[in-house]
Amino acid sequence: MSKRALTVSREQSFPEWYQTVVRDADMAETSPVRGCMIIKPWGWGLWERIQAELDARIKDTGHENCYFPLFIPMSFIAKEAEHVEGFAKEMAVVTHHRLKNEGGKLVLDPEAKLEEPLIVRPTSETIIGDAFQRWVKSYRDLPLLINQWANVVRWEMRTRLFLRTAEFLWQEGHTAHADREDAMAETMRMLEVYRTFAEEVLAIPVIAGEKPANERFPGAENTFSIEAMMQDGKALQAGTSHYLGTHFAKAQNIQFQSSEGKLEYCHTTSWGVSTRLIGGVIMTHGDDDGLRVPPRIAPRQIVIVPMLRDKPEDAGLIEYCSSLERELKAKGIRALVDLKPIKSAEKRWSWVRRGAPLILEIGGRDVTGNNVTFMRRDKLREGDKVISQSSARDAFVAEAPALLDSIQATLFSEAKSRLDGNILTGMKTFDEVSAYFGATEGEDEAGPFRGWVQVPWSRPEGAKLEAVADRLKALKLTIRNAPLGQGPVRGTCIFTGEAARESILIARAY
Amino acid sequence: MSKRALTVSREQSFPEWYQTVVRDADMAETSPVRGCMIIKPWGWGLWERIQAELDARIKDTGHENCYFPLFIPMSFIAKEAEHVEGFAKEMAVVTHHRLKNEGGKLVLDPEAKLEEPLIVRPTSETIIGDAFQRWVKSYRDLPLLINQWANVVRWEMRTRLFLRTAEFLWQEGHTAHADREDAMAETMRMLEVYRTFAEEVLAIPVIAGEKPANERFPGAENTFSIEAMMQDGKALQAGTSHYLGTHFAKAQNIQFQSSEGKLEYCHTTSWGVSTRLIGGVIMTHGDDDGLRVPPRIAPRQIVIVPMLRDKPEDAGLIEYCSSLERELKAKGIRALVDLKPIKSAEKRWSWVRRGAPLILEIGGRDVTGNNVTFMRRDKLREGDKVISQSSARDAFVAEAPALLDSIQATLFSEAKSRLDGNILTGMKTFDEVSAYFGATEGEDEAGPFRGWVQVPWSRPEGAKLEAVADRLKALKLTIRNAPLGQGPVRGTCIFTGEAARESILIARAY
Repeated sequence: MSKRALTVSREQSFPEWYQTVVRDADMAETSPVRGCMIIKPWGWGLWERIQAELDARIKDTGHENCYFPLFIPMSFIAKEAEHVEGFAKEMAVVTHHRLKNEGGKLVLDPEAKLEEPLIVRPTSETIIGDAFQRWVKSYRDLPLLINQWANVVRWEMRTRLFLRTAEFLWQEGHTAHADREDAMAETMRMLEVYRTFAEEVLAIPVIAGEKPANERFPGAENTFSIEAMMQDGKALQAGTSHYLGTHFAKAQNIQFQSSEGKLEYCHTTSWGVSTRLIGGVIMTHGDDDGLRVPPRIAPRQIVIVPMLRDKPEDAGLIEYCSSLERELKAKGIRALVDLKPIKSAEKRWSWVRRGAPLILEIGGRDVTGNNVTFMRRDKLREGDKVISQSSARDAFVAEAPALLDSIQATLFSEAKSRLDGNILTGMKTFDEVSAYFGATEGEDEAGPFRGWVQVPWSRPEGAKLEAVADRLKALKLTIRNAPLGQGPVRGTCIFTGEAARESILIARAY
Repeated sequence: MSKRALTVSREQSFPEWYQTVVRDADMAETSPVRGCMIIKPWGWGLWERIQAELDARIKDTGHENCYFPLFIPMSFIAKEAEHVEGFAKEMAVVTHHRLKNEGGKLVLDPEAKLEEPLIVRPTSETIIGDAFQRWVKSYRDLPLLINQWANVVRWEMRTRLFLRTAEFLWQEGHTAHADREDAMAETMRMLEVYRTFAEEVLAIPVIAGEKPANERFPGAENTFSIEAMMQDGKALQAGTSHYLGTHFAKAQNIQFQSSEGKLEYCHTTSWGVSTRLIGGVIMTHGDDDGLRVPPRIAPRQIVIVPMLRDKPEDAGLIEYCSSLERELKAKGIRALVDLKPIKSAEKRWSWVRRGAPLILEIGGRDVTGNNVTFMRRDKLREGDKVISQSSARDAFVAEAPALLDSIQATLFSEAKSRLDGNILTGMKTFDEVSAYFGATEGEDEAGPFRGWVQVPWSRPEGAKLEAVADRLKALKLTIRNAPLGQGPVRGTCIFTGEAARESILIARAY
């Protein structure tokens, strides 16, 4: 085995590799609170960049940010029937508002029992819908386009940092419209915002499409998703956009006076992405040396490590690095001179593991020659050998933005080749699908790489769809989505034998 | 009574006026969840600006952002004894993680009762301390400088939008240091960050000082605050910074190996400001026409209202306004053309009430003359008359940044005069203080304007201090702080008759 910065490779065990990256890139850790994570500065820095970039796009499409209560009265959750079914299983419930000291021990104060329990929001359709019902009077108030950045809680039995945690952070958009057409246009617009954001900012290529009925958001009329392919072949749902029809409007009485003076129900939408995206970044771009962060979300895009030697020359070296940092910052680059009191080699590897896009190691000879020596994190090695490049300082500063763009492009194109090259089409029977994914006994985690298959189906509903889902589930598979913009589909459904209506993606998934 | 944009003036009823501003400036509203508020786009926009400006200052002083769990195990809260006393009274307690459907009704699922109740964080010393205990090993790991932006919950019986709500948003800094000196330097550095932030960004002049022992944060060794004077004379504690000594470190075992190889306890600090600051902005800068937002935190600094007339000329007018908006944006100004389908006069007054710093009303004659007509929100009226100014378009664009700076300066200087002119010194007895604040039967809300008094005291402790606090409480007064940087104090304590050691500020407060 070649020597890499991590103790475990993707090939050895993808799940273990993932945990190692999260730990060794210093991104997050588990907390003493079941299922809740602590997001550390490097992980949080990614989230800050994700927030800033996505927030700008959400505002550019006309939405305004608000903030709604953390708690939702139990009766609100009960209003939308399917919504209850979907969420009632996994919510944190507040029942008391005080503890008391009983013989030196803290206990619940029975006198402080709430008349109605409060739910810690698992999602905010019901509490925001209640506000919409007050805010919307006339067609002139529509569309109402709201977003919030918030924490939400869904009790999870098996958690994994970033990918599935009891508490997570997200943005949730909620909008109300006069008719189906406008609401559906919004649903698709935000799906497209997510698609371009994932591809342009996170460098994660995705397939946008519609979820089958059994995978819809509880209470939605249609759910759309973007799906990304991780390096183990599994799909990660990276964002969803829901057309909610008039379900929530009817449950919560969100009505408006139309321009003809009629009282009508609003058509609503909701859409969200979460800290799960960080898990997607890791599993898309990480390698056996750690994380590789796309420059557009890197908290530090260029890290400068001075090769200090505890000698008088160090002062000049530090000044050389600091002025370089200033020049790069003046160009809008997030640069940092790492002056931590640890060895240079340790610093190098810590930034390799964190995935800073460009790592500079500056020594006395660079100062003398007015050069910089740097490593591109996207092309760290040739074979096992780490590659350093040298460049005249001025030229490096001038080209740094283009260099970062090039790293962003490389990461995207690597991931895009993986996605494009691993969607198998042409299977005509369920047996072929089953054979492709192979034996599925025991742990699916350790299985060999399997891509996705795209097959025709007849879009069955109800019990027929349940039967399809069950057959897939037995193979640990799910339908990811029916990609948008597909041409007419010929052939027969691999599940029902009926005439195919569209093609769908089938995959193992996170 | 003169005609103003609000239905109630500050003089008629300050509390009612406050609620009216919050409502009519469209900042926030109460929610169906007891004590929790809905922050609307204009209010949230202020918070976004506050976050951005303060976050930059927190990072500039070397802190990194993290995120810790929303929930805290009950046993953690119990670890620091004073901390328990201070917070145990008002916390939201999660006891179950599931509801179930019983005969069509949602009820608590008794099988989903948590073994240990979880507290929704009222503040995060204990959960962050637990992480510090794992993160800190050696003196090389110190200082550890962490901040988080989060929501917190403290059950409150009497709530008021922004000023006192069960859920609120804040930042909380938590740091660990090798010794008292370093921790105290941090405590004071962050107090100074708050002071300059309040004055430079919020245009709120404040007095920085130390809280008396009875007003300390539960578990703190010293608590410092910045105190601002509202337009009704009351004090608003606008930010606090705590030196926690080794109390939390001992309770949570936060130890490090010193450079001499000895195991020592860390000295920790914590500091925070919250959405309460928005209440402070309202009560500092609002007038009888609504809010006046300091330009540095205004979501929209310049609002352009085209005087549309449903005529063909409208197209040219809109283009004139849009190109003006682009020019202003190119200068880094947050400008907006308001194209909502409502009457121009309605728009004008909605922006006056929201307090946009500069409001432009552009008509056909402005287009012809290449002019702009504008109102300064800080100097809206002369007597009762609203003042509009006219300026050549190019000159206006060129001077707009300076104009915004001037508005920022005016708001600060008005508030500064109020603060400076209303701190009474020279009182020598408690009776004088009592007489100044006058009869206090019944509701203190409706009382006449009373400033603050600064008096010498002997810094009593224990039971003596309790007695002082009780006497003040009977007059609805509290000690705000002992201002920093005061010279030697002569005379005797107005409470104890002993030799004075310092002077303190006494006031009514929010």
